[in-house]
Amino acid sequence: MYVMGQAVPVTQAVVRVPQEERTRVMRQRLLDATADLLATEGFAATTTMSVAERAGVSRGALLHHFPSKNDLVVAAVAHVMSSRDDDLRAKADRITGARTRPVLEMLADHFTSPVFMAALELWVAARTDEALRAEVFRLEREVGRQTHALTVELLHADESRSGVRELIQATLDLVRGLGLASALSDDAARRNHILDQWALTLEKELA
Amino acid sequence: MYVMGQAVPVTQAVVRVPQEERTRVMRQRLLDATADLLATEGFAATTTMSVAERAGVSRGALLHHFPSKNDLVVAAVAHVMSSRDDDLRAKADRITGARTRPVLEMLADHFTSPVFMAALELWVAARTDEALRAEVFRLEREVGRQTHALTVELLHADESRSGVRELIQATLDLVRGLGLASALSDDAARRNHILDQWALTLEKELA
Repeated sequence: MYVMGQAVPVTQAVVRVPQEERTRVMRQRLLDATADLLATEGFAATTTMSVAERAGVSRGALLHHFPSKNDLVVAAVAHVMSSRDDDLRAKADRITGARTRPVLEMLADHFTSPVFMAALELWVAARTDEALRAEVFRLEREVGRQTHALTVELLHADESRSGVRELIQATLDLVRGLGLASALSDDAARRNHILDQWALTLEKELA
Repeated sequence: MYVMGQAVPVTQAVVRVPQEERTRVMRQRLLDATADLLATEGFAATTTMSVAERAGVSRGALLHHFPSKNDLVVAAVAHVMSSRDDDLRAKADRITGARTRPVLEMLADHFTSPVFMAALELWVAARTDEALRAEVFRLEREVGRQTHALTVELLHADESRSGVRELIQATLDLVRGLGLASALSDDAARRNHILDQWALTLEKELA
C-alpha cells in the first residue's frame, strides 16, 4: 500500500488512492486511541500528546488532522457512536422469540461499555466548558435521536399509541442511569434483576 | 461569638464553645464552597486554592482541616447529600392526595440539582482515579442505600411484594439517567412527559 521514496512509474490516480487510504487509516487510529483514552484514563488525561503516543502518530500529524483537543474528543465520540447502531442491528437480527428482554440486555451492554464511558467523560467535561458545550450538545441530541429510533425499531414498538414514546424514552433514561451506576463498580447482578422486572412491565405496557 | 485579643474574663468552658462553633462554621463553609465549585466549575477546576478563595479562608486553614483535595471533595459530597434526606422528607410531608407523581417530581428535582451535579463530577473523576475510587465507591453505596430506603418510604411501597424492590431501583436509575440528560441543557419538558407516564405505570404496578 505504501509508496515511499521510489521512482515507481504510477499514474496520479493510482497514487492518490493509497494516500487517501493512509489518511483514513490514520484518522481512525487517532479516533480509536482518543475514545480508548477517554474511557480508560478520563477527560483530563486525554491530551493531544497522550493520544499521539497511544496511536503511534507524531503530534504534528495529529494536529494536522485535529487542530485541538476539543476537535479530537468530539470527533472520537461521534466516530465510536456511529459504528454502534450497525452493531446493535446485527445483534438484534439474531434474536429469536421474545424480543424485550434481549433488547434491554443489548442496550444495557452498550450503556455500560467503554463507548458509553468515553461519551460520559465528554458530556461531563462539556457541562463546565463553554467552548465544548454547544458542539457536544448537538452531538448528544443527534445520538439521542438515533438511539431512540433504533430502540423503537428493535422493540417493534408502535409509537402512534399513547404513552409508548414516553416509555421508550424512560427505558433509555433507565439504561443511561444503569450505565452511570456501573461506572465505579461491577453492577451486573443488580442490573439483571432490574431489567428482568422492567422487561415484564414494558411488555405489558407495549402489548 | 468571636473572642479575639481581649482579656475577657471568661471560663475555659465558655471559650471552648465559640471555638468549636467557629471550627464547625468554617468546615461547613469550606464544604459548601467545594460542592458549589464542583457543580459550577467541575472537578478539575476545584482545587484547594480555588476552594479557599471561594470560602474566604486561608489555604493553610483549609489544609489544616482537609489535608488534600481528595479529602475535601469526598467530605463535601457526603455533606451536601446528608442534608438532602431531611429536605426530601419535609417536602414529602406536605404532599396531599396521590403521592406517586409528586414524589417522582421531588426525586427528579434532586437528580437535576447542583447537589447531584457535584456528586456526578466526583463519581466520574473517581472512575479513573485509583486513589479516590474506593472511598467514593463506599460513599456511593451508602448514599444509594439511603436514597432507596427514602424512596420506599415516600412512595409508601411494600417491598415484601415480588418485583417492587426492582421497580423502586428502576425508578432511581431512571431519575439518575434523567439527571445526566439534564447536564448539558434544560431537559424539563421531555422529563415531565416521561415522569407523567412513569407515574401511571408505577402506580399500576405498586397498587
